[in-house]
This record gives sequence, C-alpha cells and structure tokens, in this order.
Amino acid sequence: MSRTARRRVLRISVADSSGAPRSDAAHRPDVLAVEEPLEIRVGGQPLTVTMRTPGDDIDLAAGFLFTEGIVGAASDIAEISKCDDNVADARLRPGVVVDAQRLRRNFLTTSACGICGKESIDSVRTRACFDVTSDEVGVDAAALAHLPERLRAAQRVFERTGGLHAAGVFASDGRLLALREDVGRHNAVDKVIGWAVLGNRLPLAGSTLLVSGRASFELAQKALMAGIPVLAAVSAPSSLAVELADEAGMTLVGFLRGSAMNVYTGAHRMRVAGAPAGALR
Amino acid sequence: MSRTARRRVLRISVADSSGAPRSDAAHRPDVLAVEEPLEIRVGGQPLTVTMRTPGDDIDLAAGFLFTEGIVGAASDIAEISKCDDNVADARLRPGVVVDAQRLRRNFLTTSACGICGKESIDSVRTRACFDVTSDEVGVDAAALAHLPERLRAAQRVFERTGGLHAAGVFASDGRLLALREDVGRHNAVDKVIGWAVLGNRLPLAGSTLLVSGRASFELAQKALMAGIPVLAAVSAPSSLAVELADEAGMTLVGFLRGSAMNVYTGAHRMRVAGAPAGALR
Repeated sequence: MSRTARRRVLRISVADSSGAPRSDAAHRPDVLAVEEPLEIRVGGQPLTVTMRTPGDDIDLAAGFLFTEGIVGAASDIAEISKCDDNVADARLRPGVVVDAQRLRRNFLTTSACGICGKESIDSVRTRACFDVTSDEVGVDAAALAHLPERLRAAQRVFERTGGLHAAGVFASDGRLLALREDVGRHNAVDKVIGWAVLGNRLPLAGSTLLVSGRASFELAQKALMAGIPVLAAVSAPSSLAVELADEAGMTLVGFLRGSAMNVYTGAHRMRVAGAPAGALR
Repeated sequence: MSRTARRRVLRISVADSSGAPRSDAAHRPDVLAVEEPLEIRVGGQPLTVTMRTPGDDIDLAAGFLFTEGIVGAASDIAEISKCDDNVADARLRPGVVVDAQRLRRNFLTTSACGICGKESIDSVRTRACFDVTSDEVGVDAAALAHLPERLRAAQRVFERTGGLHAAGVFASDGRLLALREDVGRHNAVDKVIGWAVLGNRLPLAGSTLLVSGRASFELAQKALMAGIPVLAAVSAPSSLAVELADEAGMTLVGFLRGSAMNVYTGAHRMRVAGAPAGALR
C-alpha cells in the first residue's frame, strides 16, 4: 500500500497589506500522507484498530504489543503476519498467555472513585522490565542539537506531505539506527520500537529516542518500556511525561531546536563543552 | 486542578558557527502543560480513560460521548458530574440504551479478514445525523486567513507552555464561539463540541472548526458528527480526512498559514475577492 496519495487542491493566496499585492486561486497537484486503519489481532482475535500510515505494519504491531505491555517479551511472539493490507495478526508462542486485563486497558474497572497520574506512572513502572537509570550514559549537548536536522533529512515522506510525525533511535555514538514515519506520533514510536523488538535489540541501552513533535506521557511510557534512557522532543513535554521520566531515571529533553534545548530530567547526563563550571549542578 | 505546572529546567545553548559564540547552561523556571488521566463513566460504569489537560472536563465527556456515537443526542444525557478530580460520570435519561457495540469499538469483531478506510468512512456517515452539504454556506478566504492568529491570541495556556493544541469554533460572521485547549488535539475538539452539545447548540451549521495542528480522520469525524460544514487546519490533512470530508460534503482547508491555504474539498464554498474569474471552478 502506498504511503502517499495524490490530490488536486485549490491553492488560495489572499491579498494583504504586507505581502501579496492581489488575491489568487489556482488548482495544483498536492501529495497527502495516507491514513488507513490497521487492525491488530492476537491469535486471530481482534485486539485494537489504530489509524496509521501504511508501511512497517509488522513493526507497528510488534511495537504496540510490547510497549503497551500486552506481551511481556519479544520471545512471546512466534510470528506476525499480514492477512490483509490492513490486518496484522500476531501468533504467540505455545503457552504464552496474553494479559487479558491489559486488553481492556481502555475499560478500566477501578473500584474506588478515583484515578490519577501517579497511578498511571506506577502502572507503567510495574510493567517496565529494563533499567534506564545507568549513570554511564552521557549525552553530548552539541551532538544532540544536530539530531533534529538529521531526522528531518532522513524523512522521506514528510518533505512531500508535511503530514507525518517521525521517531528515530540514535545510538550513543550518534548513528541513526532506525527511523519511522506515521500520521500518528505513537505509531511512529511503536514502529521504531517494534523494529528493535523483532531484531532482538532490546533494551536500547544508551540510545536516544527523538520525536518530531511533543513528548506526551504515552511516548515516555513507550521509551521506558524499550529501555531507552534518553527521550528528546522538538516541542514541549507534558507534565506527566516529565514526572514519569523523573521517577524512572530517564533524561527528558524538550524544545530541542536550533542550538538550544530544555533539559527537564536527568540533567546529570548532559555534557556541555565550554559551559561554565558547575552550571549542570 | 491546575492546567499548568511549574518546573525547574536546565536551559542549554550550544556554541555554533552561525549564532552563539560560546556554550551556556543555566537553570531557570519553566511552565508545563498538565497532562492527567480522565476516566469517563456512563451510569457509573467505566468507559474509557483519556490523557487530557484538566479543565472543561464535563464538556470533554459530553463531546466524547456524542462525537464517538456512544449517545445519539444531547437529550440522551441527563447529567454529567465529577465524582473526583479525574472522573466524569454521565447519567443518562431513563430508557436510553448505550450502544454496547460502540463501547467496544477498539475491539472490532470483523468476521472476514479485512478492514479499510472506506468502511471507516461508511461507519461514520451512518452515525452522523446532521447534513453538512448546504450550498448556502460561503467561506470568505480573507476572513479565514485571519482565524489562526485570532485563535492563537485567544489561547491562554499555550503562550506559557507551548504545549497545547487548540480547537475553536467560529460562527459564519467570524465570531469566536468557543475555544478549548488540551495536550490531545482530539480532546480539544471534544471539549469544544461538548460545549455545543450541553448548550443545545447542535448542529453547528454554518460554522468553521479551526484546529491548531493537523487534520486527521478522527477530527473530521468529530466535526461531521457536530454538523460543522467547514474544517480548517493550520497543518496538513491526512488522506482519509480528505476522503471523509469529500464524501460528506464538508469543506476541508489545510496549511492555513500567513495569507494562503490549500482547499482540499468543498471549494465551491470559497469566496476570494479579486481572484481571476473562474479560478474557483
């Protein structure tokens, strides 16, 4: 299936005081990012439907199943196959039992009247099986500052559509290990982590996950599940993403733009050549 | 509950060839957009959990229940109350039965092996009860071009956090009827439509829904459910959003920036003063 679709659009420019001297309207071709449903099944049973950009669907299914805690390890999955353009079915190893409670995660049955972010964090930390607290991971700020332009340069579909989120995993030496694009930012992250799951590359120790947009709780959760110690976002993080990163010992960087960045958690890992002594404390 | 949270961050600037002469790192206060779970219940039964920015939770619950087709009309809802900071419970009118199939929408039981965007569109069109095909709705391109700056000016939280999506409904005469912000763009749209549901303002005939980011299928679906004939987005639409808008008779505008825009569907409604005759055909 194609990741892009052609469409004829009407391009309108309006006369304004600062710019265009007169209004104009003309038809021209345009390229859209494709969005289509993907049904993820486990053993033939429908589990969920996500609206995604076609491509890397096996990675997406593997990443979803793992980062959402529905399977506990990559070895639980025997095979994932497509039985249709928009259906991915995961066959589990004999004896592996899917966490039925997790299947119903959107239908929580809290007995008491109450739920809060702290519980969401505790729930993720209970499921996460990798340690991301290592102090041996160092992040060079100057190298990190260059990652967004490298991510953008490697994005193939975005430049034509402007409509795709990207997620990239970079090794500690700066190599881009994997890049995936999708209309949904959570899907882009699931695709890149699914690539690691299926290649037995977990945990992604020492690596940095860079996302093109904002950093939500969901993205921080997925990074933690994959054992990624550094999450960097081009835009703002949410309060709960920061809280989760803080409690888990991850480094969370936001507003990574131009030659600057905000470090929200795990600042002890940052290396800034030429910065005043003691500035990182 | 607060919509923003204060946090101390480490601001790093890296020396580069074009800008800063030397690197720097310093702590400073920062303001984050709050993200917390909201559990939506119907008659005391947990239905879903959405990660949202606190505020307008009753609107959010009403908008979600209506735009997702879980209740068929605003009159189905007797009352929505908060029984906790993060729990909204909807009490339905006597005799109203919730569509149990819709409750399980993420657990589709398709008998055959297959699902596609066309089916998603058909499903939404079956549920939508308002007509958005009216040819009497005209959209002045010059007025539309000014809406993003008006939306931004009215956003209270974004300017402090940079972390919130906005959704605004504008009347046909250009008045801003309602604006809502959220870390999730679908929540921002549900909040603004929920405001209309609870105020018996549906359908929002003749109005324009403006969203600060991209236009996905989900957002087009929600606009259609509310009877909104014009959906405008600051960024790119997806292929399936365009297809749904096309089939439903909505006008979909994307890349609404500066003094220009792309009209993907429903271009017959556009009015462009000064444009060459026949350019809109």
